[in-house]
Amino acid sequence: MDDVTKSPTRIPHRAASGGHRWDAVELRPYKEDERALFKTITRQILFSDPELDGELRYFEVEPGGFSTLERHDHMHAVMVLRGQGRCLVGNEVREIALHDLVTVPPRTWHQFRATAQEPLGFLCMVNARRDKPQLPTEGDLEELRQDEAVAEFLSGE
Amino acid sequence: MDDVTKSPTRIPHRAASGGHRWDAVELRPYKEDERALFKTITRQILFSDPELDGELRYFEVEPGGFSTLERHDHMHAVMVLRGQGRCLVGNEVREIALHDLVTVPPRTWHQFRATAQEPLGFLCMVNARRDKPQLPTEGDLEELRQDEAVAEFLSGE
Repeated sequence: MDDVTKSPTRIPHRAASGGHRWDAVELRPYKEDERALFKTITRQILFSDPELDGELRYFEVEPGGFSTLERHDHMHAVMVLRGQGRCLVGNEVREIALHDLVTVPPRTWHQFRATAQEPLGFLCMVNARRDKPQLPTEGDLEELRQDEAVAEFLSGE
Repeated sequence: MDDVTKSPTRIPHRAASGGHRWDAVELRPYKEDERALFKTITRQILFSDPELDGELRYFEVEPGGFSTLERHDHMHAVMVLRGQGRCLVGNEVREIALHDLVTVPPRTWHQFRATAQEPLGFLCMVNARRDKPQLPTEGDLEELRQDEAVAEFLSGE
């Protein structure tokens, strides 16, 4: 056997411990900075390793909450794992439910919203090497709101 | 908006269509060659894109079935999505259940087995650029069987 990196994700088996938590996986509030554009969301890094070119994370948005509206050069590959909600990808607003797949192409505005009733949890695969997210300017928001469905989504209605 | 690659995984939203199938995702028998070491297993490629350094696939092993016993330089990052079963990672045999995480380090023998009662389905993240799997020689199998638990696992008991 090879020497095993100390990374917790090299533990061969980490059991799901209920409530979308996992053994040896830290729960982190997902608050990189003081953005006004999101409500409570947590992050668990499920797989991240020097030998892996991708990372797999689990995000959970509280009932009535939403993720940051942002875009970046890297892609997001998303699968819903808990609850249901809506997402914005570019100019498209879609209802999403358990196990649905969402692709966020490069440089595309996106946001996820839980319903008022239950948390929305999703897996998100990204490149291990990736750029930082970009936030919308007032001009970007104005442009997005030109579309009625997008405007409604962004207002949280 | 950018030009969008024709890749089906650039479709913004692909709904789960029930029974662990997805819109616009092809179901493929996973039989790369005439190996004697596995029973029926299907593969669905959920995310694969020139801009993604990882790939996310969904594998499903039929009741009583198992995946190929193999090893390779690349890692596997696995999450159980359906059913339960057992896995071998190196010399460790573990019971696995819904949402459990399994890490297969580089160059480590591994195999997944469903129970007799139900299919075992799991997500598997890999590097988009990766080496081909290697099958065990008779010598490798003999070495693996030195461990009683491993021998029992390999015999399917």
